[in-house]
Amino acid sequence: MSGGSARSLGKGSAPPGPVPEGLIRVYSMRFCPFAQRTLLVLNAKGIRHQVININLKNKPEWFFQKNPLGLVPVLENSRGQVIYESAITCEYLDEAYPGKKLLPDDPYEKACQKMVFELFSKVPPLLIRFIRRENEADCSGLKEELRKEFSKLEEVLTKKKTTYFGGSSLSMIDYLIWPWFERLEALELNECVDHTPKLKLWMAAMMKDPAVSALHIEPRALRAFYDLYLQNSPEACDYGL
Amino acid sequence: MSGGSARSLGKGSAPPGPVPEGLIRVYSMRFCPFAQRTLLVLNAKGIRHQVININLKNKPEWFFQKNPLGLVPVLENSRGQVIYESAITCEYLDEAYPGKKLLPDDPYEKACQKMVFELFSKVPPLLIRFIRRENEADCSGLKEELRKEFSKLEEVLTKKKTTYFGGSSLSMIDYLIWPWFERLEALELNECVDHTPKLKLWMAAMMKDPAVSALHIEPRALRAFYDLYLQNSPEACDYGL
Repeated sequence: MSGGSARSLGKGSAPPGPVPEGLIRVYSMRFCPFAQRTLLVLNAKGIRHQVININLKNKPEWFFQKNPLGLVPVLENSRGQVIYESAITCEYLDEAYPGKKLLPDDPYEKACQKMVFELFSKVPPLLIRFIRRENEADCSGLKEELRKEFSKLEEVLTKKKTTYFGGSSLSMIDYLIWPWFERLEALELNECVDHTPKLKLWMAAMMKDPAVSALHIEPRALRAFYDLYLQNSPEACDYGL
Repeated sequence: MSGGSARSLGKGSAPPGPVPEGLIRVYSMRFCPFAQRTLLVLNAKGIRHQVININLKNKPEWFFQKNPLGLVPVLENSRGQVIYESAITCEYLDEAYPGKKLLPDDPYEKACQKMVFELFSKVPPLLIRFIRRENEADCSGLKEELRKEFSKLEEVLTKKKTTYFGGSSLSMIDYLIWPWFERLEALELNECVDHTPKLKLWMAAMMKDPAVSALHIEPRALRAFYDLYLQNSPEACDYGL
């Protein structure tokens, strides 16, 4: 991996050249949970990659040619093929590259992972609402909503009787949902898993994974990033560099 | 296929027994565009299946055991495995059953279909808002938003230079987005594709597909269904039977 801690490219920057043979490029942002999904998969599968950070508060003009939505993550390979949307990039990497298979081959097991992914889908918008909340009254309501979503995930683990969401070992679904759980501490939301013991154990198990550790972001850095991000600071994405 | 035009099961109905060997069951609703996706794939792949219609305005208590969200489509196989969420059911069927492969094997081509699917994702909520609109002022704004979404799809066809969204022959992505285009006539929204000629040609090509024809719903029936549905009538799902 190279470039992960390089400063982000912003408006006025020159577009990067073609991707060298044998590498895959990921357009990312150091604090973005969606891009972290892709990085976790790249890391877990040991895929040689290059990271180009994008300043999401001051986006380069050329970036919209990579992804018309202007969002990270985006993958680009040496054939000039471009893939965006985090879950799509992860599945692409799992299918196109050798190494540990993160999605099960069995169609039903794979469908189960996607159903858990759907079940999880309300968590990211809830956390964004929490980060943007304007007063403490919103705070307890959002915590309650979050606990409800976590209970659904707890039920999955209870029914499966396994540590991870795909079974006894860590697989794709765990990486896809992990980045939001990593952020609970920074947001002082860890109490929201107090009533979901299996989810809490899953979090502890996840933290021991090498890919998860390698990409861990300190809560203090996340908090500083959120502060700058909410102020629309063009320095947010480069905090700490 | 059996049961497609049977009356729907509602509150108080007995839950159906296990799925017979060699069959797959789909819980559906005759006018639901999401369930139509699954039916298109079942039909296109020639998979023997049984349809059980669910009264979505008067849901059977047992149905929430199949899908906690209470939505159709739901697949159930003879091993008691249950799969919900329309796109997940379609991919499951394509992987688990022989016959024509609807998703490409190539990881990049598959990712492209999923990116088009994302691009399409604003269309269903727009059509729902259109159906539920309360006055004519909302109407023109929604039409404008719809045209904008259709332009994005037109651009995909323009860049690809093919009749279908996956290439020169019909594939998964076409079936996944088709049901909403079929509804344009019933909603008197056909004018919204007047400025997207390639999309219009795609629609004409789709209508010739045997699976699409077999599952075609008359605009008059759709309109009658919407009227009853908006009134929350428990008869809506069984209109015409």
